[in-house]
Amino acid sequence: MVDIIHRIGIKAPAARVYDAVATAAGVAGWWTRDTTGTRPVGGKVNVCFRHTDGAEIGRMDFEMTTLDPTEVRWRFVDGPPEWMGTEVTFELAQDGEMTILNFGHRNWKEPVEFMAHCSTKWAVFLMSLRGLVETGRGRPAPEDLKIDNWN
Amino acid sequence: MVDIIHRIGIKAPAARVYDAVATAAGVAGWWTRDTTGTRPVGGKVNVCFRHTDGAEIGRMDFEMTTLDPTEVRWRFVDGPPEWMGTEVTFELAQDGEMTILNFGHRNWKEPVEFMAHCSTKWAVFLMSLRGLVETGRGRPAPEDLKIDNWN
Repeated sequence: MVDIIHRIGIKAPAARVYDAVATAAGVAGWWTRDTTGTRPVGGKVNVCFRHTDGAEIGRMDFEMTTLDPTEVRWRFVDGPPEWMGTEVTFELAQDGEMTILNFGHRNWKEPVEFMAHCSTKWAVFLMSLRGLVETGRGRPAPEDLKIDNWN
Repeated sequence: MVDIIHRIGIKAPAARVYDAVATAAGVAGWWTRDTTGTRPVGGKVNVCFRHTDGAEIGRMDFEMTTLDPTEVRWRFVDGPPEWMGTEVTFELAQDGEMTILNFGHRNWKEPVEFMAHCSTKWAVFLMSLRGLVETGRGRPAPEDLKIDNWN
């Protein structure tokens, strides 16, 4: 098993970062606009990624399995085969005026090229998350920064 | 041992990406302006990262151990203890008008928080590399995008 890990700092209280990763409305503001959830907080969430012309790139489902003020976990239950069984983890720690977010996308079976793509793409989306929380403006798909010939 | 991996696409011939990662002058254009090398291509390279006020954040030395048109490797011989023994790898493949760059920063002893920071920071610097090659304008340190309370 191999993991993608990232670390960013966001100038905002941890509770605001929590809202952005523990609610479907939050996720829609930085990851993909096409996000729907079964509950206001937590629950099962469906996300769909599209090109700017509306064509679907991919979709996936996850369950919010941990909803703690300092830790949120998502478990993927549908989507690309490489993502099945993987978990996304957000660990939040307040440090002065900044919230330090330690991110993981864990339990990939192999370090395939698609994992390398996702690693870079997560960094881009975490910068989008920071933008959302700090300024109210994220860059969720389909306005996300494209990084290669895949997305 | 654990690895950071990333994947980006650059709209330019692979030879131009090669020049940006295999020469000290290239590296100075996207990683840190304070880069000095012992040879025009390859050799030992010293890089120093500074805050905008000139204060040193850190410095490191690496040797360019592989200089192949499709693969460049750097081996770190001095710098932060966590970086000792690590290698940076750039694999280049032309795909139409794009060069696909598979990047690795390999052989970390442990997935420490500093590795998570470096993973995000490498994504930022790879976007800087793309900017340099595609438009002539990178964002090397000290003009690099800051991601957290460390740098």
